[in-house]
Amino acid sequence: MSVSIVHRHNPDGEDRQMDLHGVGVGRGIAVGPILRMPDPLPEPTDDRHTGDAAAEYAIVQKSLSAVAAELAAKGASAGGEAQAVLEAASMMAQDPMLTDDVKERIEAGKSGERAVFEAFAAFQEILVGMGGYMAERATDLGDVSQRIIAHLRGVLAPGVPTSDTPFILIAADLAPADTALLDLDKVLGLITRDGGPTSHTAILARSKSIPAIVGVPGALEIADGTVVIMDAAAGLVTIDPAEAAIADANSRIAARAAASTIPVVDGALSDGTKIPLLANVGSPKDGLEAVELGAEGVGLFRTEFLFLDSKTAPTVADQQARYTELLSFFPGKKVVVRALDAGADKPLAFLNSAHEENPALGLRGLRALRASEQILLDQLTALKGAQDATEADLWVMAPMVADAEETRYFVKLGKALGLKTVGVMAEIPSLALMADQVLAAADFVSIGTNDLTQYTMAADRMLGSVASYQDPWHPAVLRLVKMLGDAGAVAGKGVGICGEAAADPQLAVVLVGLGATTLSMTPAALADVRAELATVNPEQARARADAALGASTAAGARAAAAAVGP
Amino acid sequence: MSVSIVHRHNPDGEDRQMDLHGVGVGRGIAVGPILRMPDPLPEPTDDRHTGDAAAEYAIVQKSLSAVAAELAAKGASAGGEAQAVLEAASMMAQDPMLTDDVKERIEAGKSGERAVFEAFAAFQEILVGMGGYMAERATDLGDVSQRIIAHLRGVLAPGVPTSDTPFILIAADLAPADTALLDLDKVLGLITRDGGPTSHTAILARSKSIPAIVGVPGALEIADGTVVIMDAAAGLVTIDPAEAAIADANSRIAARAAASTIPVVDGALSDGTKIPLLANVGSPKDGLEAVELGAEGVGLFRTEFLFLDSKTAPTVADQQARYTELLSFFPGKKVVVRALDAGADKPLAFLNSAHEENPALGLRGLRALRASEQILLDQLTALKGAQDATEADLWVMAPMVADAEETRYFVKLGKALGLKTVGVMAEIPSLALMADQVLAAADFVSIGTNDLTQYTMAADRMLGSVASYQDPWHPAVLRLVKMLGDAGAVAGKGVGICGEAAADPQLAVVLVGLGATTLSMTPAALADVRAELATVNPEQARARADAALGASTAAGARAAAAAVGP
Repeated sequence: MSVSIVHRHNPDGEDRQMDLHGVGVGRGIAVGPILRMPDPLPEPTDDRHTGDAAAEYAIVQKSLSAVAAELAAKGASAGGEAQAVLEAASMMAQDPMLTDDVKERIEAGKSGERAVFEAFAAFQEILVGMGGYMAERATDLGDVSQRIIAHLRGVLAPGVPTSDTPFILIAADLAPADTALLDLDKVLGLITRDGGPTSHTAILARSKSIPAIVGVPGALEIADGTVVIMDAAAGLVTIDPAEAAIADANSRIAARAAASTIPVVDGALSDGTKIPLLANVGSPKDGLEAVELGAEGVGLFRTEFLFLDSKTAPTVADQQARYTELLSFFPGKKVVVRALDAGADKPLAFLNSAHEENPALGLRGLRALRASEQILLDQLTALKGAQDATEADLWVMAPMVADAEETRYFVKLGKALGLKTVGVMAEIPSLALMADQVLAAADFVSIGTNDLTQYTMAADRMLGSVASYQDPWHPAVLRLVKMLGDAGAVAGKGVGICGEAAADPQLAVVLVGLGATTLSMTPAALADVRAELATVNPEQARARADAALGASTAAGARAAAAAVGP
Repeated sequence: MSVSIVHRHNPDGEDRQMDLHGVGVGRGIAVGPILRMPDPLPEPTDDRHTGDAAAEYAIVQKSLSAVAAELAAKGASAGGEAQAVLEAASMMAQDPMLTDDVKERIEAGKSGERAVFEAFAAFQEILVGMGGYMAERATDLGDVSQRIIAHLRGVLAPGVPTSDTPFILIAADLAPADTALLDLDKVLGLITRDGGPTSHTAILARSKSIPAIVGVPGALEIADGTVVIMDAAAGLVTIDPAEAAIADANSRIAARAAASTIPVVDGALSDGTKIPLLANVGSPKDGLEAVELGAEGVGLFRTEFLFLDSKTAPTVADQQARYTELLSFFPGKKVVVRALDAGADKPLAFLNSAHEENPALGLRGLRALRASEQILLDQLTALKGAQDATEADLWVMAPMVADAEETRYFVKLGKALGLKTVGVMAEIPSLALMADQVLAAADFVSIGTNDLTQYTMAADRMLGSVASYQDPWHPAVLRLVKMLGDAGAVAGKGVGICGEAAADPQLAVVLVGLGATTLSMTPAALADVRAELATVNPEQARARADAALGASTAAGARAAAAAVGP
C-alpha cells in the first residue's frame, strides 16, 4: 500500500499537510489532538555495576515495589477485566522466581537494568516455549520489564499514553495487553499503521463504538498534539484541518449522536428486503445489552463460558437454567445457539487431552463432541428443555463441521432429541465446497468468517506474521460464501453470517449480495451496519458482490466494491 | 465402516471363514501366514519393591544393558537408516538422565518395573511438550520402555514380530518407529485395521512395492499363522483360502513379476492420450532410481535437503552444482523443482525464527521466502545456472502460494532471472478457488494433494485423532482439483499432481478425469498407476470423476468411482 498524498491549499493561504488513507472501521467521526504510543525502550547495554551488589539490588527492589504498586493502583481504579490483567502484571513484578533471578544476576556483576532485562527475557522465552495461553502472557511480562527499567532510568514507561483531556491514539498496532491499560473514556478514536479490518484494534473499536482507521501508512509520522479529523466511513485522516472542516466534522458528530436516539428499525435494504440484524453474545447478561442496541435476536450464542471454568461438564439442569435465562430475553425472536466449540485456543480438560502440534487443525468443534458424545447429548437435551420453557425461537448449530455426512449426523441427533431447528456452521472450506449437499440436509447454515478465512488462506488468525491473510474481503473467501448463498437460495434455507465480517458495513452489503440472509455481530456495530444496508437495493448489493468476486486481493475486492457505489 | 461378511462353502465341504474388506494400496497380491503385532504390555502396577533398593536397581541395570546391546546389535545387522534409528534407541536405554531417574524412583521404594515405566513416561511427556521433532521421538522412547519392562518380566518384547520365514504383517496401524525395525525382506504384505490411503503404512507400502490393504475392520481377530490371500486391487483379504484359490493367487503373483520385466512405455490412457508419469525425488541420487523405474521426468524435486543441515543458506555455487547434478539425469526431459518449502514441520533457523502456535498455518513456503527474499533470489539464480548448464527442461514452482497476486510476484521474479517455465503449487484452498486468475498468470500449476487436503478439511495431516479427514478422495478436495483442471484447460496450461494421491491407481484415474495432465509419485508406484491408466479412455476417466464429485464422503467417492467401472 502506498501513501496517497493530497496537497491542498487552505483558505488562510498556508500549505496544508497531506491527508492519510486507511481502512475505516465502522462509520464514526472524531476530531482531536493525537497521542502516539511511545517506542519501546532500547535494550540495556551489558554493563557491570560499580557499587556493591547489595546496594544495586536495593535500588532495583525499590523499582520493583514501585511498579507493582503502580500497576495494582491502576487496576483498582480501572476495575473489571482490566483490573485482573493489571493485578496479574503487578504480581509478576514481585514474583520470587523472577526477583531471585534478578538478584543472582546482580550478584554475578550485572547492572540492575541489565539484570532485570535478562531475567525477564529468560522467563519470557520459557513462556513462549510453553505455547498457547502461557506464550501470550510473555507479552505482558515484557511490558512489566519495560516499566521497571523505565523506573530505574527515571524515564516515562512506554506503553499506553495517558492524558487528562481526550485524544486520538496512534500506534503501530494495538495488542490486548495495551488496550487493557487504555482509559477508553479519554480515547476519541484509534488510528494504526498496521492491522486490518479483523485486527484486535478493529474488534475493540467495534465493540466499544470507538471510531477507528487501521492500516494507515505514515500514521506514526504525525507529531504528538497535532489535531486531526478522522472519518472512518471515508477511511480518511485529515491532518491539521482548517477551522471550517473542524466545524463540519463536529456538526456531523452531533448529527450521528442525535440519530442514535431515533427509534431503531429492523434491518432492511432500501427496497424493504428484510435482512435481520442479530447479535453475537457470550453470556446471558450480554443478551440484555443486545436488545437495548436493537438486535432482532441472537445470531451466535457461544456456550463455552459455561464450560471453561469446569473440570467436568456442567449438569443438564445447570445448563438448562442458563440457556433459559438467555432465551427469556427474546420472546418470539430467533436465538441461534452454538454447541460447545472446544479445542484449538480454548481446550477443555475433559474433552481435549492430547498434545496437538497444530491445535487449529486438531480435534475441535463437532469432532471433539462426536468423540465424547455424552457431552453433546447433555447439551442438546438442556437446550431442548430451554426451548420448551421459553417463547424464544431456538436454533441450534454445530461448530467445525466438515461435510454433509457430519451435517446429517448432527441434524438427526438434534431432531431426535426434539429440537425444532438444527443447522451447522460453515468454517471449514470443505463444508462450503459441499454446500449443495449441506443445505439439503440442514435447516440453516451460519458462516463463521474468521475461521473460514483462516483455513481458506491457511494462515493462523492469531499469528502476526501472517495477519495480512486474515481478511474476509479476500475473493477466495467471498467465492466460498457465494457457494453457500447460492445453495441456500436453491434449498430455500437461511444462510447467516456470524463472523467479524458482518460488522464491517461495506462488507456486510457484499455478503448480502452473495446471498447472506441474516447478519450477526457485536451489538455495538448494529447501528452502522443497519445504516449502510438501508442505502442499497438487492441489485446494487449484488453488483458490489460481483465486483468483489472478480478482484485478486482483499484490498482489490474492497476497492472494487466501493467503485460500484450505492 | 462395517465388516462385510461373505460365508462360502469350500470344495472340501468345510465352513469357510469370512473374507475381510479394506482399502487396497496399489495392485499387489500376496499369499502367506499372518503375524500380528503384539499388544502393548499392561502398565506395571504401582508396587513397592521388597528387597533393598541397590539390589533392585542392579536387576534393572542388567535389563537396561541387555536391551541397549540388543538394539545396537539389531542396528548393526540392519544397516542404513534403520541402524541410525536403532542406535538412537539403544542410547536412550543408557541415557544417564533417565537411568538416574529410575534409580531415584527405586530408592524412593518403587519396584523396578514401575520405576522404569514412570521415568520413561515423565521424559516422554517433556518431549511431547516440546512438540515437533522431539515429540515424535517420544514414541521411540515408549518402545524402549516396553522392551526394558518386557526384559524385566522375562516376556517377549512387544513391537514388530520377527520370523525366519516370510509372513503377512497385521497391525492396528504402523508408525515410523515400528517399520524401522521391520525386516522388509520377510514381509509379504501389510494389513492394518486403521489408517487410510495416505497413512504411514500406505506410504511405506508404495515406496517399497509391498502389497498392502489398510482400514480393514476385523483384521486383528485373525489368529497368528492363519494363511490369507490379500489382493490389493480388490481390497480383499481371503482367510484360510482353498488350495485352488492359493494356486490362482500364486499364478497371478508370477504374472505380475513377469510383467515388470516388459519394457516400460510412457503413461497413457487406452486411446493413446498421453499422461506423463513423473517421479517425486528428494535428492539427486533418487534421480537415477526414478529413471530406472521408468519415470518420464521429475514432477517434484524437493530442495529442502540442501538446506536442512545448514545454519545458513548454501551458496549459489553449491546449489547450482547440486541442481546440475540432478538435471543431468534427465536430458530432454521435464524436471519440476520446488523452491525451498521451509516452515511448519521443517523449520530452518535462518528463515523461521518465531514461535508459532499452529506452524502449519504459519510463515512457511513462499511467505517465508518473500520475507527473506535474498534466499529466494539465490535459489532461483542457482536454478537458472543449472538450466543453462544442462539439457533438461527445467520447470520451477513456488510452494504455499495463496492467490494470483502471489503467483504474479513469483512468476515475474523467476522470468526476470531468466527461468523459462515458472509456476506455482496448489496447496492452499484459496489458490484453487482463484484458479481462473492463477492459471492466467502462471505457466503451470502442480497440486500438492496432501497439504490441499489438510487445509480444505482443516485437519492436521500428522495428527492421529483426525487422520480420517486426511483423504484426498474427499469430494471437497476433488471439487477444488476440478476448478484447477477446468481453469488449466481454458488457459491451455498444464495441471500436475504431485501429492500422495497420484500414487493411488484408482484415484489417479479420477484425477485425470478432473483435468490433471501429469502425475508425479514415488517411483515404486509408477508401474501400477501406468497399468491402471491404460485400462480407461478419457470419457471413462471423466465418468469416474463425475461419480466421485457427487459423493458425500471420501469412502463414498471411492465406491462411486469403482461402481462406474472401466
